[in-house]
Amino acid sequence: MVYENYTTFYASQNQAVLTVTFDFGPVNIQGISMLDDLNRLSETLEDDRSVKVVVFQSAHPEIFVAHADTNFLKDISTQAIPREEIELLYLQKVLQRVSALPQATIAKVEGFARGGGHEFMLACDMRFAARGRAKFMQMEAGMGILPCGGGASRMARQVGLGRALEIILSARDFDADQAQAYGTINQALDADKIGPYVDELANRIGQFPAESIEACKRAVYASIDLPIEAALKEEAYWLYQSMSKTPAQQRFQYADDNGAQNDMDNQRNWDQLVMGIQEVK
Amino acid sequence: MVYENYTTFYASQNQAVLTVTFDFGPVNIQGISMLDDLNRLSETLEDDRSVKVVVFQSAHPEIFVAHADTNFLKDISTQAIPREEIELLYLQKVLQRVSALPQATIAKVEGFARGGGHEFMLACDMRFAARGRAKFMQMEAGMGILPCGGGASRMARQVGLGRALEIILSARDFDADQAQAYGTINQALDADKIGPYVDELANRIGQFPAESIEACKRAVYASIDLPIEAALKEEAYWLYQSMSKTPAQQRFQYADDNGAQNDMDNQRNWDQLVMGIQEVK
Amino acid sequence: MVYENYTTFYASQNQAVLTVTFDFGPVNIQGISMLDDLNRLSETLEDDRSVKVVVFQSAHPEIFVAHADTNFLKDISTQAIPREEIELLYLQKVLQRVSALPQATIAKVEGFARGGGHEFMLACDMRFAARGRAKFMQMEAGMGILPCGGGASRMARQVGLGRALEIILSARDFDADQAQAYGTINQALDADKIGPYVDELANRIGQFPAESIEACKRAVYASIDLPIEAALKEEAYWLYQSMSKTPAQQRFQYADDNGAQNDMDNQRNWDQLVMGIQEVK
Repeated sequence: MVYENYTTFYASQNQAVLTVTFDFGPVNIQGISMLDDLNRLSETLEDDRSVKVVVFQSAHPEIFVAHADTNFLKDISTQAIPREEIELLYLQKVLQRVSALPQATIAKVEGFARGGGHEFMLACDMRFAARGRAKFMQMEAGMGILPCGGGASRMARQVGLGRALEIILSARDFDADQAQAYGTINQALDADKIGPYVDELANRIGQFPAESIEACKRAVYASIDLPIEAALKEEAYWLYQSMSKTPAQQRFQYADDNGAQNDMDNQRNWDQLVMGIQEVK
Repeated sequence: MVYENYTTFYASQNQAVLTVTFDFGPVNIQGISMLDDLNRLSETLEDDRSVKVVVFQSAHPEIFVAHADTNFLKDISTQAIPREEIELLYLQKVLQRVSALPQATIAKVEGFARGGGHEFMLACDMRFAARGRAKFMQMEAGMGILPCGGGASRMARQVGLGRALEIILSARDFDADQAQAYGTINQALDADKIGPYVDELANRIGQFPAESIEACKRAVYASIDLPIEAALKEEAYWLYQSMSKTPAQQRFQYADDNGAQNDMDNQRNWDQLVMGIQEVK
Repeated sequence: MVYENYTTFYASQNQAVLTVTFDFGPVNIQGISMLDDLNRLSETLEDDRSVKVVVFQSAHPEIFVAHADTNFLKDISTQAIPREEIELLYLQKVLQRVSALPQATIAKVEGFARGGGHEFMLACDMRFAARGRAKFMQMEAGMGILPCGGGASRMARQVGLGRALEIILSARDFDADQAQAYGTINQALDADKIGPYVDELANRIGQFPAESIEACKRAVYASIDLPIEAALKEEAYWLYQSMSKTPAQQRFQYADDNGAQNDMDNQRNWDQLVMGIQEVK
């Protein structure tokens, strides 16, 4: 596939990892142009099994992704709407589409991520932030609305109710270490460590089968929307989906033929084994 | 509105912040008097848009709120009841009413909060506790019951299953730092820092529109009870609700007219900007 | 009850605590033998109110429980199956049965717990791990499948979405401190502290009524599968269930007769009180 001609970012593929770099001066504003770009990017990724991991980063020295552009926010209707007539906002739809990509998605946050920029980050599967550079905020409560790019819906799925409410109601800045402590990000990393960390993680996942990556994502996201018995059924569903498309059976057979599972050295060495087994196809 | 004539606490309003101080010797027992007071307080708050934040604290030197009074617990039926005939306990109803207030609620815990006192704290939106003074416990498993003031229902919504089960099954004391590590509270703070911290937080939120505070709360609480697609619809519903009642559109228009969103200085200065924008009404 | 004649572990009861020690050389593989043993163990425990706590540990110097045996994994169908025809795997059924035991269950992890071994641990109520000895991994994404012993379904119930996805998608080792930071375990403990810690916890819970332990478990697990109003009803249901079977009412009456709840010394001394009250039956 070709990942070109975007207005607000550029993308480059290295093996199975696509790196998307936001670069939309002056502030990486999250306007219609960026949403259109993300929508088109998602459409392409949905059909591309050669990309297995997407890393989002920014070329801007201070900003990851800024908040939603007031240029479209000002046109939101001021009419209250009955629940049965509600349709999702374009912003919600695009970020939900990003969240539902079959690829593993990683936000590498080395600057400000506030408002819609923070909600974009929450729509990614994993988030890492650079100490001394990342700064977070949901300012919507202070503007007179609520985070409406999925932020109000996704925050408590990451951090529990109490901390989600504090972040959203306080509408104030917090940094990478606070984000790690509260759980909005996976980890805070020193500014010179975040690049190598994310590279290694992305390259590792990029060597796994595309279909097992998708199966893992589908089952985990489904798990928190379903009671446990239904979640387990969904898990089994994705097991057969992945078994039907990946070399899993050959790998189990290979291990079993060699008695690999009962070898104590193997048990000590799983971190490498799981990479070596990629050669069995 | 008038917040007077309570038996178990007193209340004083300063601008948009109502401070409720438990003061019911000898131990701030959570009896029918306290539940009646909380019920009446909630009824008044539900209709009062001048109060936007409620801070709960205690005048007792050692106790925030004690457990439910054995004086009413001893009268709970010992007859097992079929699921279809179950009605909520008065204790559950009152604490759920507190949880569903349109205001932001903050528990400032500077003493013991065990049993029903701990469950009351969990029914608040946010919780902060003083090191060296706060002590927590759910003792119900040891008494022969379960936490039945919403504690069994709300604990895992804050801290995940494993830690919720340990807290509830072990029925033992834990302190502010352990509570922070497990996530039952937002943060543990030094005893001389908790007052200023909560004041600043309450005063900040108190300057935001009442309707955006409510919208944020409704959407966040709904988000964990709904699958993601339905949660996003609820989020959109509350967006239009808040747009219809707050000056949000004027603020977006104001920012857009000034190109404020694309100004790099503004992006560096959001923590103050969000307060300054309150003047646009 | 008699807990004997298992192939992959042995069990010994001390008062209300059953200790189950995995001992199935060479690597404590999670094969059909172990699943059969766990299934039979669960069947017995479901009818045994004399056991109130089950501690799982390992006699193996390096391994808690290893991954699922490739010997049965290799026979999983490679045919995709429609959702309406999905049935749970034997592995899922057995671990769900463990999760639903009426007893409190504790995993004391002093070695490797990867793949199905990690999923077994997640099916326990509480998890503690020894620093320097425990090592965790879900390697399934790398094999071409997903964690299908409940791991994909239970991970986010413990740690939130972002960290669950990283653990499952990265398929790499992590240690006890990382597990504590992410929340897959309750606590990481020094290797010489974990034994006494788990003993004390198990013995404490073991003195509480079997029916209140069960009520706590049922309500907490139900709470995250239900909207809050339904969760509160389930909580009330289990209150009457436990009131009908435990000495709770006698204990409330005893406290009330003595005015114990309003005694300041008692309020300072709850950690011991809750044990002393066990004598009121």
